[in-house]
Amino acid sequence: MYDGIVQELIDEFGRLPGIGPKSAQRIAFHILQTQNFDVSRLSELLIEVREKVRFCEVCGNITQEERCAICRDPRRDQSLICVVEEPKDVVAIERTRQFRGLYHVLGGAISPIDGIGPDDLSIPQLMSRLSSTEVHEVIIATDPNLEGEATAAYLSRLLNSIEVPVSRLASGLPVGGDLEFADEVTLGRAFEGRQKLS
Amino acid sequence: MYDGIVQELIDEFGRLPGIGPKSAQRIAFHILQTQNFDVSRLSELLIEVREKVRFCEVCGNITQEERCAICRDPRRDQSLICVVEEPKDVVAIERTRQFRGLYHVLGGAISPIDGIGPDDLSIPQLMSRLSSTEVHEVIIATDPNLEGEATAAYLSRLLNSIEVPVSRLASGLPVGGDLEFADEVTLGRAFEGRQKLS
Repeated sequence: MYDGIVQELIDEFGRLPGIGPKSAQRIAFHILQTQNFDVSRLSELLIEVREKVRFCEVCGNITQEERCAICRDPRRDQSLICVVEEPKDVVAIERTRQFRGLYHVLGGAISPIDGIGPDDLSIPQLMSRLSSTEVHEVIIATDPNLEGEATAAYLSRLLNSIEVPVSRLASGLPVGGDLEFADEVTLGRAFEGRQKLS
Repeated sequence: MYDGIVQELIDEFGRLPGIGPKSAQRIAFHILQTQNFDVSRLSELLIEVREKVRFCEVCGNITQEERCAICRDPRRDQSLICVVEEPKDVVAIERTRQFRGLYHVLGGAISPIDGIGPDDLSIPQLMSRLSSTEVHEVIIATDPNLEGEATAAYLSRLLNSIEVPVSRLASGLPVGGDLEFADEVTLGRAFEGRQKLS
C-alpha cells in the first residue's frame, strides 16, 4: 500500500474506536500535509495521558491526583452520591450545574452477554464507601438502556438492604422533542412518571 | 470539562478531519482505558512520519527517499504519465494492477472557490517534466467531480498546446451497480462513451 511508516500510521489510527480504514488514511494525510497541525503536542499528550491520568481512589472518576477535583472540593454536598457508569457521564451531569453532591463511577454496567458482573464494576467500593460515611441519598444515574436498567435494579436491591435511600433519574419525554416521535417505551415512562401541576 | 491533559488530548483529536467532539472523547477514553493499545508506537509514528516522509522530487507522490518507489522502478513504462490529484489516488490505481507507467501528483485540483489556481498545483513541474523526457501519453485521472473536470479541461488545453497526446479516464456506469440507480449525468456519460461490441 503505502511506504512503510505511512501505512503503519494509518494502521494505528485504524485501531482506534470509530475510525475505519478510509478515515485513518484521511487523518494520516492530514497530519502529513498540514504544517500547522501540532504533531509533537499530540505525540507528547498520548504518552502523558497514559502516564499521569489515573482513577480517583474515592469515586473512580479520572484525575491526575489521588482524588479527583470533585472529591477534593469541600463545597460539594458529601451526603449525596450520584452513581454513573463512566467518567464521561460525570462531565455530562456537571454541565447541567444541577447536582452539587459527589459521584461514584462504576466503570461500566452489568451485562451478562459481555461477561460483566457486579464484581467487575466498582460496586464493592461503593458499598464500603457507604458504610464509612453518612449518606442521605444515592441517586442512580446509569444509562436508560437494558444494561443500565439492570444495573440500577441490582443496586437498588443492594442499597435497600443496607437502608440507604435510593432514587433513579426520571425517564420521560426529552425536552424540545415532539411527542409523536417518542418511542412507546419512553412515552409509557412519561405517563408512569407524570407529575401533578396543581 | 475534564482535568487538564485529558481535555487537551480530546481537543487535539478533535482537530483531526472527520473527528467530532464526541468521537474525540471516545478515542481519548479508549486510549486511557485500553491497556493493550500501543500509545508509544502511535506517539513515535506521529513524529517519525512528519520528519521522514516527503514528496517525491519527480512526481510529487509521498516517499521516504528523494524519489518514490514507482519513479525508482526501472520496469515501469517511462513514456506514460498518469496525472492524479492526491497520493491516495496513486494507491487506488496501483491496486488495479492495470497501469505500469509513472504518475504525476498535482496536490489537489483547480478550485476558484477555495482560491486554488493552476500555480498552486504541481502543473509547472509537470510541464518541465514533459519538456525534458519523451512521453507518449498523458492520462488524466483527476476526480470525476466539478474541480477534477475543470483541472482535466485546463490540463488538456495546456498539453495540446505542446502536442503531447492526452487521454482522460472513462466515465460511465460503475461495475456491479444497478442502471436504475445511476444519476442522469453518469448515465449520460455512459451513453456518450458507449463502445462497439462487434
